[in-house]
Amino acid sequence: MSAPTDPTREQSQHEDDVLERIAKIVAQDTIPAGERHGGDDAAVLSPFVGEAIISTDVAVLGVHLDAALFPLSDLGYKAVASAVSDLAAMGARPRGLVVAVTAPAGTDLEALHHGVAEAAAQTNCPVVGGDLSRGGDVAVTVTVFGECPGRGAVLRSGAKAGDELLVTGPLGRAAAGLRRRRAGAALSDELVLAHRRPWPLLSEGMAARGAHVHAMMDLSDGLGLDLHRLADASNVGFELSELPVAEGATWEEALSGGEDYELLIATNDPGRLRLMFFDRGLRAPITLGVVVGERDVRTLAGEPLARRGFEHQL
Amino acid sequence: MSAPTDPTREQSQHEDDVLERIAKIVAQDTIPAGERHGGDDAAVLSPFVGEAIISTDVAVLGVHLDAALFPLSDLGYKAVASAVSDLAAMGARPRGLVVAVTAPAGTDLEALHHGVAEAAAQTNCPVVGGDLSRGGDVAVTVTVFGECPGRGAVLRSGAKAGDELLVTGPLGRAAAGLRRRRAGAALSDELVLAHRRPWPLLSEGMAARGAHVHAMMDLSDGLGLDLHRLADASNVGFELSELPVAEGATWEEALSGGEDYELLIATNDPGRLRLMFFDRGLRAPITLGVVVGERDVRTLAGEPLARRGFEHQL
Repeated sequence: MSAPTDPTREQSQHEDDVLERIAKIVAQDTIPAGERHGGDDAAVLSPFVGEAIISTDVAVLGVHLDAALFPLSDLGYKAVASAVSDLAAMGARPRGLVVAVTAPAGTDLEALHHGVAEAAAQTNCPVVGGDLSRGGDVAVTVTVFGECPGRGAVLRSGAKAGDELLVTGPLGRAAAGLRRRRAGAALSDELVLAHRRPWPLLSEGMAARGAHVHAMMDLSDGLGLDLHRLADASNVGFELSELPVAEGATWEEALSGGEDYELLIATNDPGRLRLMFFDRGLRAPITLGVVVGERDVRTLAGEPLARRGFEHQL
Repeated sequence: MSAPTDPTREQSQHEDDVLERIAKIVAQDTIPAGERHGGDDAAVLSPFVGEAIISTDVAVLGVHLDAALFPLSDLGYKAVASAVSDLAAMGARPRGLVVAVTAPAGTDLEALHHGVAEAAAQTNCPVVGGDLSRGGDVAVTVTVFGECPGRGAVLRSGAKAGDELLVTGPLGRAAAGLRRRRAGAALSDELVLAHRRPWPLLSEGMAARGAHVHAMMDLSDGLGLDLHRLADASNVGFELSELPVAEGATWEEALSGGEDYELLIATNDPGRLRLMFFDRGLRAPITLGVVVGERDVRTLAGEPLARRGFEHQL
């Protein structure tokens, strides 16, 4: 949107120059024939196949990332990874993303966009457009869009009594990494990297959709909160037998730490899911427990499991 | 994205409650069968027809809107209108939008989202998802997506020597409205409303695409800047004979005021364009001048026309 500043000044070339430098950082090597990324009022993408899947995610420096502990590029990387993970959670294939940034004068916009570009390249989700504005916060809003060829997207509302609940990996790595970084661990520490460089599980999500699972979501806010959300949406309860705690993480981090981005899956055919994962060379999913029909039954190892997880501080 | 705050607190129900209230404000009366708006990791839309068109636009309180002069709902309205206008500029039909908001505690998020909902309803571009975060700025990022059935989107790079340049209406109304508001005019003043409630010209954009125009863009930053951008992208020059100044606006406002969101069109068949507009009951477009092959020839009434328009203050 245009800022109602002095309309007579003639420095507007400056904006186009900044946008051009950033465009070079985030540009793909090759743009598919018939597509237009940048340079127009809007991006033009070749037709989507099947349902269109869309999600938007905002990350603010000082809220979502501690600038004293992490480089600015991490904000860009994590904003993209978090949004792309939402595509994974639906079983979608990424088609592209747009990124809107606000920042005070003097912000290293190039570092920020290097993080965006890195995550976009790693998830095969090209940056097709963006916007930039002056603001007091450094904030990055990433909107991703994907497609679901064939069978439709997997919702979180489809879990049924008797379904097995599974997760794609052990939990708590991102929260443990944050704890270790606060205690002085290097940026290259393995768990710190799990926090800084989350990996959206696109292949796992597409495999699960192919296996006709009933419900799926990504664990962005921690199992202790997200599982309740899945159960609420499906109008069911759950009985967990296991909590798979990642090496180096605590029980509490595994239960309530967010940003692991592992996928939570409910299916009545776990054999088919395991086979799909095996065939594609994906790590075997871990059984957590079962879905039950009584909405109020929500237990872990026989004890009631309270809602707990990230507070977004609205 | 999740905020790395104390992961043990159990107040996360609060976030879900706030989101639920806002979801009610922006919800459509009826959601098309097979679509999912909100409640999942991502929105699910039925397949798009033709090319997918995507644009993102950020609006920051204090940068894009003066909180002392305008209500907060205007920020939401204008962020949506500005983004939807980018769809109009491509000749696209809207399919939906997502909105990401950052705000400090105590912000009237409901007022903000009422503005979003109003613009979404008026442009037939439903709100299908969103995100919300604490931040120092009140900022709204709107990402719109549309489709182009049949013939592809109209780019700004297709203008050819000999094309006629036209605009969908007289210019300067939004800038004049801002000036009047600053001088004490009521929020209901006609020109102030032109500033507060811009109207994306979706019907005009689709009609122009149907008329096979060569190039199009919306005048978000003022003719004096945007026409240069169209000429740059098309590698051409222009000779303007006319500057259509809106009633109540100054020459300077018509040339350099932004946020009019009129469409600038280049076509070698203006008769066809006029007929298309007439058939659909749209206001007749106004001829501005012609496109010339010499890139450096850029004149208004025979005098060189310098670049001038909104500075986005990056």
